[in-house]
Amino acid sequence: MSYNAPLKDMQFVLNELANLHQISQLPGCEDATPDTVEAVLEENAKFCGEVIAPLNHAGDKEPSFWKDGSVTTSKGFREAFRAYADAGWQGVQHPQEFGGQGLPKLVATPCMEMLHGSNLSFALAALLSDGAIEALLTAGSDEQKARFLEPLVSGQWTGTMNLTEPQAGSDLAAVRTRAEPQGDGTYKIFGTKIFITYGDHDMTENIVHLVLARTPDAPPGVKGISLFIVPKFMINDDGSLGARNDVHTVSLEHKMGIKASPTAVLQFGDNGGAIGTLVGEENRGLEYMFIMMNAARFGVGMQGIGLAEHAYQQAVAFAKERIQSREVAGSAGPVAIINHPDVRRMLMSMRAQTEAARALAYVGAALSDLAHHHPDEATRTANLALYEYLVPIIKGWSTEMSENVARDGVQVHGGMGFIEETGAAQHYRDAKILTIYEGTTAIQANDLVGRKTVRDGGAVARSLVAQVRAVQQQLGDVQGEDFAAIARRLGEGAAALESVVEYVVANVKSDVRAVFAGSVTYLKLAGIVLGGWQMARAALVAQRKLEAGEGDAAFYRAKIATARFFADHILVQAPGMGASITEGAVGVLALDVEQF
Amino acid sequence: MSYNAPLKDMQFVLNELANLHQISQLPGCEDATPDTVEAVLEENAKFCGEVIAPLNHAGDKEPSFWKDGSVTTSKGFREAFRAYADAGWQGVQHPQEFGGQGLPKLVATPCMEMLHGSNLSFALAALLSDGAIEALLTAGSDEQKARFLEPLVSGQWTGTMNLTEPQAGSDLAAVRTRAEPQGDGTYKIFGTKIFITYGDHDMTENIVHLVLARTPDAPPGVKGISLFIVPKFMINDDGSLGARNDVHTVSLEHKMGIKASPTAVLQFGDNGGAIGTLVGEENRGLEYMFIMMNAARFGVGMQGIGLAEHAYQQAVAFAKERIQSREVAGSAGPVAIINHPDVRRMLMSMRAQTEAARALAYVGAALSDLAHHHPDEATRTANLALYEYLVPIIKGWSTEMSENVARDGVQVHGGMGFIEETGAAQHYRDAKILTIYEGTTAIQANDLVGRKTVRDGGAVARSLVAQVRAVQQQLGDVQGEDFAAIARRLGEGAAALESVVEYVVANVKSDVRAVFAGSVTYLKLAGIVLGGWQMARAALVAQRKLEAGEGDAAFYRAKIATARFFADHILVQAPGMGASITEGAVGVLALDVEQF
Repeated sequence: MSYNAPLKDMQFVLNELANLHQISQLPGCEDATPDTVEAVLEENAKFCGEVIAPLNHAGDKEPSFWKDGSVTTSKGFREAFRAYADAGWQGVQHPQEFGGQGLPKLVATPCMEMLHGSNLSFALAALLSDGAIEALLTAGSDEQKARFLEPLVSGQWTGTMNLTEPQAGSDLAAVRTRAEPQGDGTYKIFGTKIFITYGDHDMTENIVHLVLARTPDAPPGVKGISLFIVPKFMINDDGSLGARNDVHTVSLEHKMGIKASPTAVLQFGDNGGAIGTLVGEENRGLEYMFIMMNAARFGVGMQGIGLAEHAYQQAVAFAKERIQSREVAGSAGPVAIINHPDVRRMLMSMRAQTEAARALAYVGAALSDLAHHHPDEATRTANLALYEYLVPIIKGWSTEMSENVARDGVQVHGGMGFIEETGAAQHYRDAKILTIYEGTTAIQANDLVGRKTVRDGGAVARSLVAQVRAVQQQLGDVQGEDFAAIARRLGEGAAALESVVEYVVANVKSDVRAVFAGSVTYLKLAGIVLGGWQMARAALVAQRKLEAGEGDAAFYRAKIATARFFADHILVQAPGMGASITEGAVGVLALDVEQF
Repeated sequence: MSYNAPLKDMQFVLNELANLHQISQLPGCEDATPDTVEAVLEENAKFCGEVIAPLNHAGDKEPSFWKDGSVTTSKGFREAFRAYADAGWQGVQHPQEFGGQGLPKLVATPCMEMLHGSNLSFALAALLSDGAIEALLTAGSDEQKARFLEPLVSGQWTGTMNLTEPQAGSDLAAVRTRAEPQGDGTYKIFGTKIFITYGDHDMTENIVHLVLARTPDAPPGVKGISLFIVPKFMINDDGSLGARNDVHTVSLEHKMGIKASPTAVLQFGDNGGAIGTLVGEENRGLEYMFIMMNAARFGVGMQGIGLAEHAYQQAVAFAKERIQSREVAGSAGPVAIINHPDVRRMLMSMRAQTEAARALAYVGAALSDLAHHHPDEATRTANLALYEYLVPIIKGWSTEMSENVARDGVQVHGGMGFIEETGAAQHYRDAKILTIYEGTTAIQANDLVGRKTVRDGGAVARSLVAQVRAVQQQLGDVQGEDFAAIARRLGEGAAALESVVEYVVANVKSDVRAVFAGSVTYLKLAGIVLGGWQMARAALVAQRKLEAGEGDAAFYRAKIATARFFADHILVQAPGMGASITEGAVGVLALDVEQF
């Protein structure tokens, strides 16, 4: 059950598909030299493989627990988080001004993938801190930044996101937690928050809760939500910890997976009121929370990719070891099951989807860097639009794909996969949260349809389709059956995506229910077409390298074969998905509620 | 988390699609009058809903356990199995000669579905007993029948299947358990068997193990395997229980799901040898075991359908209760989530796949009855071939679909689905075993390709495609958009299935690895096309009823809408799957083992 970071593929994607050399020339990204990046990735891989991954299965067997009002995390987590913080990993992508390394998102992204791939439960603490840091950087006052950012960036403290309440899951309009101004610049917070990841733990001395709540005269709905900082322990003016704040853990959830990560029910204000300070302006909380959420959504996409990679590695290792039955083409005796065609098919499917999602996510990270660091404003704006189109896809598609990959990972193991000792089942259980938290796939798909497609009349989507078409053209110039097949499937995929975008834009006003009936399928379609686009680009690079006689020929040949597999087994589904969206809404919506 | 047997749909399928009236006229099936069948189903539904279903979630929370050499089943299981036996449910489909009710398989099938749908773990005991009964009926001596069948049919004892060993999972050629003849007609059995479902328990006073083992001079491989009866307690000549046999439980597995059912490691012969008697002839054990396995495979298919139905009902109930967010088309306030288009899409997908798989399985059961009871030998033979073609599809496709349905069931619940208390997660965990035991989906697919397609040159497969085409023709005669869409998708599906059958037959000799690389996709394709065929037949019946003004119009309209959904969202995938098989083997097989 070891995890070995796929450094070779990561480097390939960074350098050949996500243009690291271009990113490292952006203002503020100059530290990301090839040597530095290589050293960072290698060190991170070593740390994750040696320190974090070994805690993954153990944490599943002995989850975090709550007793007498306090939470004890799984064995080894506390020490590991200390080591993680001491090595500076929490700060990779955060500003040097607050103690971070200030590296671009493109470099932080493979680090995230490794951490999540090693141990989803552990990595969640880091992911939530990243989100809190982003929100404070954007919307925090100078005083809040001075007080909270350094301990968060250093990993001395962790952060949380407090959105959900029993009656307010996906629907934040229903948030009821109250914030009463005290006249001294502070507020007293009262309410119950549920599903708070690392809402309590023993890994750091303090926890910084970012909490959505309503002030007394706030308007109803999402326009009346404000964001507050509520630390577990108050902070004295000299930065030392003060009194315990009135936020307490009522219970932890009994979950199907990611069991080592404590998921808390938090009670604010049962003893007079939890003291918080407002972030930014009143009633703009949702806007700020979206900053956290967008960072966290991208991060959850990386969780999917990391988990898929881990499940794949484990399945490959088992398939090479397990001897069972003769070759279907005949063999002297039983062989390792990796030689059986259907096992091979599952492994290729796991591999191809993981590589495609990785490439798309890293390319997305590069767009984010361009959007934030490019000197030209128009370039920043254009790249931001592309990045924001991709975020729901990176979150939604990568996590949906990770469920399938984890499922195939169990299946490769046969009966042993169903026994908890092998660890394959843990991936299957863990994966199931990824399509739910930080917004379900349907919530991502709503975002893709509404904010990302309809709002600009499909302009960004069309520009991406045009880029896919351009790669399809290039594929046509390469000889051989593999490239012909990839070109054909990519062309069919582009056509399907294009037709869906036009359908969405044309029908959203006249038949909004029909459009949203196809929203999740649209998201998955966009994922496979854009993932296929990256696999096609990868195949073209590999072909050039092979022709030039450069580098590791076996790696490049495998890349072309994997792109071919992706085309014939994943992209091939695009026309059917397109038809489901443009012609299938009737069947989705035909029944009355009473007919169910 | 209650389970209500879908009696209305069951009756519809029995009467309108599986021709119960024809089956009940076969010799030996005369007891299956409409009144009797209705009474049996209603009683069974009541029993399963009231007695068995309530134990499902409780058994998951408090699994069977092994202590001091004996197994204690989950609370309430013992009493429930007693009630199950006392009511005669174990004997529904078994001969009256041995105390059964002698009803056709077509009538036993909905009973199976209800039992599995209520509680997979509980139902496994019954399923394994059914298999043991089938094997003894076919291959047992008169003495063995006299001794073992009545207690098995009455549910006084249960049966088990002992195939798997640590080195012999899917590969039975690797079985090592030894059977040494004692000269008195008995054998001493020595060896270790793993993954033995209900290999030990406290629900009945005796357990009848059917065990694969090798006699001293047996040939190697599968042709040297014999089948033995090894009871937990020896049976005296008067039928009373005698000495404890030398078969002992070493441990129970710690599984991801179906936790209430004990999965035992059994040690035979550690104290001098377990005493067994040979079933049938030496070295023909695999043949007899296949009798059990075919019955059990059909039964596991019913597990998938039952579980899918249960997960669907639970998701519908939650979606009607849970209030969250406004309608996408606008609403005064938040609405029940069943009104959100993507929730609706998931529910329709769950419903459509479950109904399609149910219809296909019941039609399969009717073919089995025709194969066993029809007076004309040629008719028997023809129906047996059809049934045997369907068995791997009913097993493989119904269980693969149940994974997807259980997954969507969790997703409909959102974050609550990941919390174990709601029970949605249990279905997701339980479902994962179904595509593995009694032969993985790949093993089913090997059977479909090898024995069921290649052996007869594709004749049976082609005859089924012809039946699909005939229904497609009928659809063309019905007015309206729904039927046009169903006809079109069914036609595309038939074409895809046809092309795959021809591809398999044409290439299996020249490129066997390529053919088997597509075997699981072929199985799934056959499942959706044949399931779509049944949904199309159902829609035609519903249309006739509507036109005639007969029966429950809302039910029939829902049936047509569900068939339409199946066409546009499931059948629509057929052309892509066909292309993956006929053009996609290259990508599956391109990599060397070292490239993984």
